[in-house]
Amino acid sequence: MPGSTFGKLFRITTWGESHGPAVGVVIDGCPPNIPIDEAAIQSLLDRRKPGSSIAGTKRKEADQARICSGVFEGKTTGTPIMIGIENKNVDSSAYEPYKNLYRPGHGDYTYQAKYGARDWRGGGRSSARETAARVAAAAVAKALLAPRGMELLAFTRQLGDIEMQSFDPRAIDQNMFLCPDLRAAEQMADQVAEVKRAGDSLGGIVEVRAKGVPAGLGEPVFDKLDAELARAIMSVGAVKGVEIGSGFEAARMRGSQHNDPIKPEGFASNNAGGILAGISSGQEIILRAAVKPIPSISREQDTVDRERRPQKLTVQGRHDISAIPRINVVCEAMVWLVLADHCLRQQALLSVEKKLT
Amino acid sequence: MPGSTFGKLFRITTWGESHGPAVGVVIDGCPPNIPIDEAAIQSLLDRRKPGSSIAGTKRKEADQARICSGVFEGKTTGTPIMIGIENKNVDSSAYEPYKNLYRPGHGDYTYQAKYGARDWRGGGRSSARETAARVAAAAVAKALLAPRGMELLAFTRQLGDIEMQSFDPRAIDQNMFLCPDLRAAEQMADQVAEVKRAGDSLGGIVEVRAKGVPAGLGEPVFDKLDAELARAIMSVGAVKGVEIGSGFEAARMRGSQHNDPIKPEGFASNNAGGILAGISSGQEIILRAAVKPIPSISREQDTVDRERRPQKLTVQGRHDISAIPRINVVCEAMVWLVLADHCLRQQALLSVEKKLT
Amino acid sequence: MPGSTFGKLFRITTWGESHGPAVGVVIDGCPPNIPIDEAAIQSLLDRRKPGSSIAGTKRKEADQARICSGVFEGKTTGTPIMIGIENKNVDSSAYEPYKNLYRPGHGDYTYQAKYGARDWRGGGRSSARETAARVAAAAVAKALLAPRGMELLAFTRQLGDIEMQSFDPRAIDQNMFLCPDLRAAEQMADQVAEVKRAGDSLGGIVEVRAKGVPAGLGEPVFDKLDAELARAIMSVGAVKGVEIGSGFEAARMRGSQHNDPIKPEGFASNNAGGILAGISSGQEIILRAAVKPIPSISREQDTVDRERRPQKLTVQGRHDISAIPRINVVCEAMVWLVLADHCLRQQALLSVEKKLT
Amino acid sequence: MPGSTFGKLFRITTWGESHGPAVGVVIDGCPPNIPIDEAAIQSLLDRRKPGSSIAGTKRKEADQARICSGVFEGKTTGTPIMIGIENKNVDSSAYEPYKNLYRPGHGDYTYQAKYGARDWRGGGRSSARETAARVAAAAVAKALLAPRGMELLAFTRQLGDIEMQSFDPRAIDQNMFLCPDLRAAEQMADQVAEVKRAGDSLGGIVEVRAKGVPAGLGEPVFDKLDAELARAIMSVGAVKGVEIGSGFEAARMRGSQHNDPIKPEGFASNNAGGILAGISSGQEIILRAAVKPIPSISREQDTVDRERRPQKLTVQGRHDISAIPRINVVCEAMVWLVLADHCLRQQALLSVEKKLT
Repeated sequence: MPGSTFGKLFRITTWGESHGPAVGVVIDGCPPNIPIDEAAIQSLLDRRKPGSSIAGTKRKEADQARICSGVFEGKTTGTPIMIGIENKNVDSSAYEPYKNLYRPGHGDYTYQAKYGARDWRGGGRSSARETAARVAAAAVAKALLAPRGMELLAFTRQLGDIEMQSFDPRAIDQNMFLCPDLRAAEQMADQVAEVKRAGDSLGGIVEVRAKGVPAGLGEPVFDKLDAELARAIMSVGAVKGVEIGSGFEAARMRGSQHNDPIKPEGFASNNAGGILAGISSGQEIILRAAVKPIPSISREQDTVDRERRPQKLTVQGRHDISAIPRINVVCEAMVWLVLADHCLRQQALLSVEKKLT
Repeated sequence: MPGSTFGKLFRITTWGESHGPAVGVVIDGCPPNIPIDEAAIQSLLDRRKPGSSIAGTKRKEADQARICSGVFEGKTTGTPIMIGIENKNVDSSAYEPYKNLYRPGHGDYTYQAKYGARDWRGGGRSSARETAARVAAAAVAKALLAPRGMELLAFTRQLGDIEMQSFDPRAIDQNMFLCPDLRAAEQMADQVAEVKRAGDSLGGIVEVRAKGVPAGLGEPVFDKLDAELARAIMSVGAVKGVEIGSGFEAARMRGSQHNDPIKPEGFASNNAGGILAGISSGQEIILRAAVKPIPSISREQDTVDRERRPQKLTVQGRHDISAIPRINVVCEAMVWLVLADHCLRQQALLSVEKKLT
Repeated sequence: MPGSTFGKLFRITTWGESHGPAVGVVIDGCPPNIPIDEAAIQSLLDRRKPGSSIAGTKRKEADQARICSGVFEGKTTGTPIMIGIENKNVDSSAYEPYKNLYRPGHGDYTYQAKYGARDWRGGGRSSARETAARVAAAAVAKALLAPRGMELLAFTRQLGDIEMQSFDPRAIDQNMFLCPDLRAAEQMADQVAEVKRAGDSLGGIVEVRAKGVPAGLGEPVFDKLDAELARAIMSVGAVKGVEIGSGFEAARMRGSQHNDPIKPEGFASNNAGGILAGISSGQEIILRAAVKPIPSISREQDTVDRERRPQKLTVQGRHDISAIPRINVVCEAMVWLVLADHCLRQQALLSVEKKLT
Repeated sequence: MPGSTFGKLFRITTWGESHGPAVGVVIDGCPPNIPIDEAAIQSLLDRRKPGSSIAGTKRKEADQARICSGVFEGKTTGTPIMIGIENKNVDSSAYEPYKNLYRPGHGDYTYQAKYGARDWRGGGRSSARETAARVAAAAVAKALLAPRGMELLAFTRQLGDIEMQSFDPRAIDQNMFLCPDLRAAEQMADQVAEVKRAGDSLGGIVEVRAKGVPAGLGEPVFDKLDAELARAIMSVGAVKGVEIGSGFEAARMRGSQHNDPIKPEGFASNNAGGILAGISSGQEIILRAAVKPIPSISREQDTVDRERRPQKLTVQGRHDISAIPRINVVCEAMVWLVLADHCLRQQALLSVEKKLT
């Protein structure tokens, strides 16, 4: 059954392979009369462009988003919005040597097992390139939600062994790692240089915080807001773990520590990460994603070919050292998409009684 | 929009509140001619009964599952299977004192914010009682999958500060904590006694492993198998984090360590946790859930009532000290449900080319 | 893939077989704080009870609806509402002689082909008994919509060869055929007597009209309101055709006749049947369903058994002569369900701009 | 909630407005390794091109389909297939005079009521142009099903007052009306000439027959095959009625006439139209659609503008006289799409027991 659709009311369907003519997204369910233009989409999209990467990828040009439907005179019409992004600067020949090999840590083996065939050019559908379509869609979600007071912040909490030790939101845009701790960022730079020399790659932890989310979003019992966020974030390639609020630390905490006391002026702490029983509480939503190291490394690896014969693999070319920080905006994008969907879902529910503020 | 439905092809819808007449589930999409009876359902259900809990809850009787449709002459018919479980031994008066209070760590506040009203008796729809319906449904999924060679194991990896140090699967059923390390289990017992005296509660980490899962399950790009598992597990109340394979440890690993080499005889390690690019690889699937401490504690807590006036809250009565180990079978249940759904999804896809083994 | 669920936001899932312990429905997505009780459900349900039938069926007692969840202190809570209806007075032995035969005009052959097995008792899942669950669900939809000014009217336009010649809404409840033309109703009575003597059965045409439906319901391009209504009505067993407004007559009309002129005071005619381009116009919605004659007749018929050997079949016992008029409330129920779903869908869309009246 | 998606397993999402840059479709869920190319899509698409119309529309060039994803080395990959069709030869100025008017019989009024705005250029999203995307998608469905022995035939049964009197399938392609009765086709030509002179338009009835459909397709109780076909056909603009098999004639038939006797060699008649209890029987599937006359006529009509002031409207330019015969391939397309979806749905169900032939 198809899996390229996300969301129920604010629903997106992405399409496209890394080395096909284009990638894109259809957004269906966006309310009408929301001001949106290609510049707004481009602005979010530019945050995942190659220049934002550590050590760069081969593609030099920024992606150019083109709105093909659903927008008229600068506003959404309520009908499907298709946004396409051409694949330029594509050279599939670099992938020819691996077309019959299964690259470790990639989806080559599993796609072959699933479909009995695969588009090996640039990773095909499993390429991170697909996330450009998600980010384009999220720009529309943001255009819907930001004027209603919602605000997202995505940053690098950890890169390899280096964890942030302090939090200064202004620092995030002042370093290429998008880390809110400039000293940690310096250490990250050293680490990247070392790992690069070693022909290796790095993982890390991304955090996303959402402010201004109204209480009441999320649907019991399976479509809890945290469950939907977990799915959204885990659907980003390279993510191996997701946690909300206290997350894995909760395992060691006592109830008396973990429970957030409620005072007349609001919650006194936020171990819940803004979500209680699957429903937003009005507090800041906080989530973290564990990102695995990029599997394409220049060090030699063991693998097999399609006939299961042993092979040695060395991935050539300039690959990113880490999915971080380009993945940060993708995580943020997924949160925008979840919030847009659940705002509309809550709105539908409130038809009789009251209105969502 | 409704959120009580889970799965696309093997689809379940749960219903019922803690203190209403009953809870139950409708399973639609189960293939026909699968042998199933109430005993099989009861057997899984008994694993979450009060006797399985640390320190016990008030309900003494085991839940009794009753099949109300979809089974004829001992086999599924392909039509909806409704399984109901009566709520016996219910006393709502114990909840009367809290009916206008928001218990910290519970969904009281957020349900009120969402719906403008709530059934306060026993937690209503947000009660863990709802998970009985999930487990009943999972028994049907298990009846479908176990004969095809799939096998699940759920156990306690950590309770509060105590982590398992060794892994002996036979030990799991030999201690009340379902821990595969008997020495750790002893320490857990001491810790429970101490926490109980302190009127407090404990969190922990549950691990689920799935053997015999064929390669090829999971749908790019949003319905990746790990994304669906993350949502499934995070939809269980009290879960604050989910990880697959290496999980959060991946953040510190190098690509050369994390990539699982492929040999002619198979993968040489399993950092992927059995899932690559969102599709099962045929390796064992491994996931972990971080469980927060039970919010109902007998220590005094600050909260407010519906008029936002400050109140002190002390939860009386015998509550579990931890959601573990009763939550373990619920986590296992969610994995059965995800696998059943994705087996059918993959089967639909393979209509032309080949058959799922 | 499962097919027992209807609706996207106001979503129902029915379960149960004719001769199992019960039939029922889970309604998920109903907004909170809607007053509802078993009496309101019973009142709609009573309109399809055996006493309402022409010539009667075997079941003597009225169905008794029981609310098992989702309602607290007389109002919906926003969580799933389960309504169960016990199957009383069931005698499967009457179906024993046909258990290996395929009754012409019934689903015996196709269920066997689909599932490789079937519950032959009383038609199993394909029995009209399942529609009791739909009607129960529709009572909840009605409780949501009627206070917002929507009103439905279902009546018999044609029974066998007898068509209504005049329309007096007050006449509908004054004759057992629910025909708005009392003279036609008399002729219908004569026809029924004659057909009964001949051991045969009758079809007919049911019309449903919906007043007070706001303009703007229905979603381009596949979930048009008329498309959804057509599916809803055609999903009722025995229905072989559906038409909206001018319907099949439109084939002979010229554009200049068919177009409904628009005047400052509103539309000057209603060939559209209240729906233009799939979206409600605010005019009365008008649809008709063609109902085939009841397939269970006492005249001898040719069929085969499961080994494809020729057999003669004579259906014994007291069967209805026509699905009309019991089917009328079922058609009405499906319209309530479609309208409830689309009101919520439209509400979700209007979150930003305006509110549905 | 979004309505531009059709199908559950073979799922399509169309996008695009009449006068935007392009229209298109994303097909998600198509099994892998199905041979497909642009020529196959073009071939179906050419059957709805302007040259196929009675009296012609303004667009002269045939639509050119372009596959943008999901196909690799001439075969489907199992990932989303995006097919785009550029809008060439577009002149929105012809629609300027009507931009503040509600054209009778069109969706102008209802789109405005729904969305509070509309793209008035060429009918925007409600234009029949959107159906090009459906036909393109259907070409992929056909590529999946035709090699499995399924075959569809769509033809004109009635145009205005002229009904076919005989049925010769070879005649269908021998006249511009796609009527299987050449004599009737001659009368249709006369009628068209007359109606054209009168500045008026014509409706009619289209029939679609499907051969080779295996028994067992369709899902009780709401996703019955006939219910899904009814929705599919009614979702085509201009359709006001749908019937299966005996259809509205069933209202006058007796059970003894309507029941299709079953003989060892098969069904002795086909009043069921190939579907019993919502499940295909293996007989030919027969359905008919009532098509209303084209609302754009050159005769003067009454309407209002956005301020509800009375206006006179005369639609200029060359419009089709009837949606027939261009709509025929659209109806056929919808049947391909329903069958593809239900084949995959049935395949999923049969995972354990047997395989669909």
